[in-house]
Amino acid sequence: MDALSKKIYLILEPPTEEDPRADKQRILDGLPEGIGHVVMGLKAMRSLYPICEKANWRITVSLAWNGSCWEIYRIEPGDTRIRSFGIAADLGSTTVCMRLIDLNTGRVLAQSSAYNRQIAFGEDILTRVFYCKGQPARLEEVRLATIETFREVMDELSQKSGLDLTACGAMVVAGNTTMMHFLLGLDPFSVFASPYAPRASEFGFLRGEELGLPIEGYVYCYPCLANYLGGDIISGMIATGLPEREGISVFLDIGTNGELVVGNRDFLLSGAGAAGPALEGGVVKTGMRAVDGAVSAVRLEEGTFHLTVLGGGTPKGLCGSGIVDLIAQLYLAGYIDLRGKFTQDAPHLVEENGNIGIGYGPGLYFWESDIQAFLNTKAAANTMVEYMLDQIGIPMEQVDRFYVAGAFGTHLDKESAVTIGLYPDMERQRIISAGNSSLEGAQLLLCNKDKLVLLESILGKMEYVQFGAVADFIDRMRAAKAIPHTDMRRYPSVQEKLAKRK
Amino acid sequence: MDALSKKIYLILEPPTEEDPRADKQRILDGLPEGIGHVVMGLKAMRSLYPICEKANWRITVSLAWNGSCWEIYRIEPGDTRIRSFGIAADLGSTTVCMRLIDLNTGRVLAQSSAYNRQIAFGEDILTRVFYCKGQPARLEEVRLATIETFREVMDELSQKSGLDLTACGAMVVAGNTTMMHFLLGLDPFSVFASPYAPRASEFGFLRGEELGLPIEGYVYCYPCLANYLGGDIISGMIATGLPEREGISVFLDIGTNGELVVGNRDFLLSGAGAAGPALEGGVVKTGMRAVDGAVSAVRLEEGTFHLTVLGGGTPKGLCGSGIVDLIAQLYLAGYIDLRGKFTQDAPHLVEENGNIGIGYGPGLYFWESDIQAFLNTKAAANTMVEYMLDQIGIPMEQVDRFYVAGAFGTHLDKESAVTIGLYPDMERQRIISAGNSSLEGAQLLLCNKDKLVLLESILGKMEYVQFGAVADFIDRMRAAKAIPHTDMRRYPSVQEKLAKRK
Repeated sequence: MDALSKKIYLILEPPTEEDPRADKQRILDGLPEGIGHVVMGLKAMRSLYPICEKANWRITVSLAWNGSCWEIYRIEPGDTRIRSFGIAADLGSTTVCMRLIDLNTGRVLAQSSAYNRQIAFGEDILTRVFYCKGQPARLEEVRLATIETFREVMDELSQKSGLDLTACGAMVVAGNTTMMHFLLGLDPFSVFASPYAPRASEFGFLRGEELGLPIEGYVYCYPCLANYLGGDIISGMIATGLPEREGISVFLDIGTNGELVVGNRDFLLSGAGAAGPALEGGVVKTGMRAVDGAVSAVRLEEGTFHLTVLGGGTPKGLCGSGIVDLIAQLYLAGYIDLRGKFTQDAPHLVEENGNIGIGYGPGLYFWESDIQAFLNTKAAANTMVEYMLDQIGIPMEQVDRFYVAGAFGTHLDKESAVTIGLYPDMERQRIISAGNSSLEGAQLLLCNKDKLVLLESILGKMEYVQFGAVADFIDRMRAAKAIPHTDMRRYPSVQEKLAKRK
Repeated sequence: MDALSKKIYLILEPPTEEDPRADKQRILDGLPEGIGHVVMGLKAMRSLYPICEKANWRITVSLAWNGSCWEIYRIEPGDTRIRSFGIAADLGSTTVCMRLIDLNTGRVLAQSSAYNRQIAFGEDILTRVFYCKGQPARLEEVRLATIETFREVMDELSQKSGLDLTACGAMVVAGNTTMMHFLLGLDPFSVFASPYAPRASEFGFLRGEELGLPIEGYVYCYPCLANYLGGDIISGMIATGLPEREGISVFLDIGTNGELVVGNRDFLLSGAGAAGPALEGGVVKTGMRAVDGAVSAVRLEEGTFHLTVLGGGTPKGLCGSGIVDLIAQLYLAGYIDLRGKFTQDAPHLVEENGNIGIGYGPGLYFWESDIQAFLNTKAAANTMVEYMLDQIGIPMEQVDRFYVAGAFGTHLDKESAVTIGLYPDMERQRIISAGNSSLEGAQLLLCNKDKLVLLESILGKMEYVQFGAVADFIDRMRAAKAIPHTDMRRYPSVQEKLAKRK
């Protein structure tokens, strides 16, 4: 383990008249060779007396990496190495998720999450950004809401683990560009307005205290590549190891936005687009978040819908994975055609103001307009991938791994996602659900300081494509809107399934 | 000029959709090549908007050296390079003296000083140290008194110069080991108690804010070599350039304590002893500080005393230089013998409780007990020098320069100091009054970052001798107590003067 914070136990000789070196010097001299430049913070200096004397110079020093060198930030009597921990955080626009990590073993001591209190200023990011526009006092409000959320989650971690997190020497935060701006109190308006230059893309190591976080050590925020390609994606790179492998991978993160990376150890091409909201149930009329009561899976057998409900109670609506399942099942059953229109075979149809819907549960309807919204979104995601691969002249068959990051990808049924053409039709084991790769990457960096070097090389190598600037993007999207795709040859397994059904 | 803080004016291209680099990155990319690793502080990041935009990307960045790299701590619209300044400070136990330095030219913009408010907790250092012993709350009181003194002097500098010192990127402080402990809030008791290991000897670069000082940049405190050999002496080394020259020099600082360095570019031998107080008028009965009313010079012609009084008013007592003058004049006139006893030739003698005194002005007497106290002190200083030179086997004739640092040395008449044997009898132009070399060294380092390298080599090279541990020190001191010395051959010019008088 070469974590961003570490403890070193020292057994030192007490000062004598023959060796009256200063306490601080005695400690620095006692550190292992090759550790490099080490400084000592003022608080630690002030604690030298009486700790060292009382502990008879058997002490544990806590070191935090400050971006340039190690800094001793805490001195404790005796051997306290067993209590060495740090925090990995994923700062999402909806949820803040953290893990308390044992920096001796890399083990997760506790995990906790909370809704981002920024939501009070707008359900979606853009509302929050406009709330702050040209209003420094409001920006401060949103910043404080972010910090309060962090404190809430940290309190929970503390309760779960029984540990005092103040002693933490390192926290790594991953999140998108706007979230980082809010956390640091930087005006985020430019993230969304032409020419899309953020205030900062690399944030460096900042003192927890300076940010308003109750830890003694440093906070490292994952750097962003561009306005829409944030630290959460860069963190996903570290998590998946994509930039270190020979084989070419696709990394797709479908969240509030859709972000994409294609590449391997030689090149990295990235892009982002407004692909996300519909998939999370945000745009869909009867959609909802993946909370209790959400239908997360659907099976259609002989005209009957079998629903899996989160929490096991009464179904209240569809979350993202439920939508994908339902569309796939409707399509395979022949209830919708490749354009997403209900066929004459479809049962339980209703009509409301010219919008046709299907009853998939008691009092629950899924509308043609919902299907269209969703297909637009999946077409966008699909086209982003296709466009990127075209750019580098690599056909999908040569893609070694297809990563799907985010909570959405975690709960999604791969078969259904392939059926509707959201995922490419490739060997299923090469489609990998990367989970919360933003959090995973934060944890990995927290435990491996040398990932900072990899990070630099990723940033140096990665190119960013503005999809808005691509001329034939709309045409391509139109072709990708069909289920699974206008070019059916790309989906042999779906053809096979359809053949079986018939 | 390669100062510890600097300003750089940048004319940058505003962001475009073709070049949407983040504001921070744009600035870092615009810095001159070869500047090395540069970070940006959180406050500066927060100020990027709207400053950069409003100034149409013609901005001035202020950089401070933080010990490891440059840190951008302030961003201003337009070209403000002309206002670039730093502070050099001498933190004395009696007086805090500062200079506001223009970091473009090295010019002194203002100078100011104030009594150290620590005096409220004890006239001498030891009283202050005992006041704090085992009492953290009292240590905090003394620390705050120190900070208050700094703020007072800084306010004066600000008033004199009309500048807002908050913008300062660098302050360099020199002072003895205890003073540094008080400034930083470190318990100083161990400086005076066996085994004499200070809490810290190197303090590094600390944020002004963290110390409680109203500057945005960093404060560098000169490192100490040992408990009694503080940063004020190390600063004196930088000021005089002693460790860079081939010729051997003696550096003697007579203040509250007496500190000594002998050496050249190849070696540095240092030591300290309780040589000082009497010379500053502290021990002497009718002595006083060099303030208005103090007799600073004395000439004795045909039995009549001619006094120079500071401020020109009524004489109230003798300051250090007055004492040296008076003793020299009494000796040359034959009114005291080489043991400092009044002879039968002395006029204006009075007796009080067996103590004989001479009336040197209206209502002013100088006592035999004063002379004895003073001779003890001069013998200590003299012996320290002699001992050091003996250690390295170098006779006084081979000493190239004899530096006398401190306010005492500044006002002292060289001839009188040689006459009484306080200074060696060498060519007068080789006896150099170094003035407030502690402040000078602080100023030099402030303006020359590369002196940090010299500083490291000084600390690595300098050896420290504990005079208390020297066996024949007392014997040597006894010989040195005579005026000018028991071994009269060492003082040919004094012999000459005496011969002339006779």
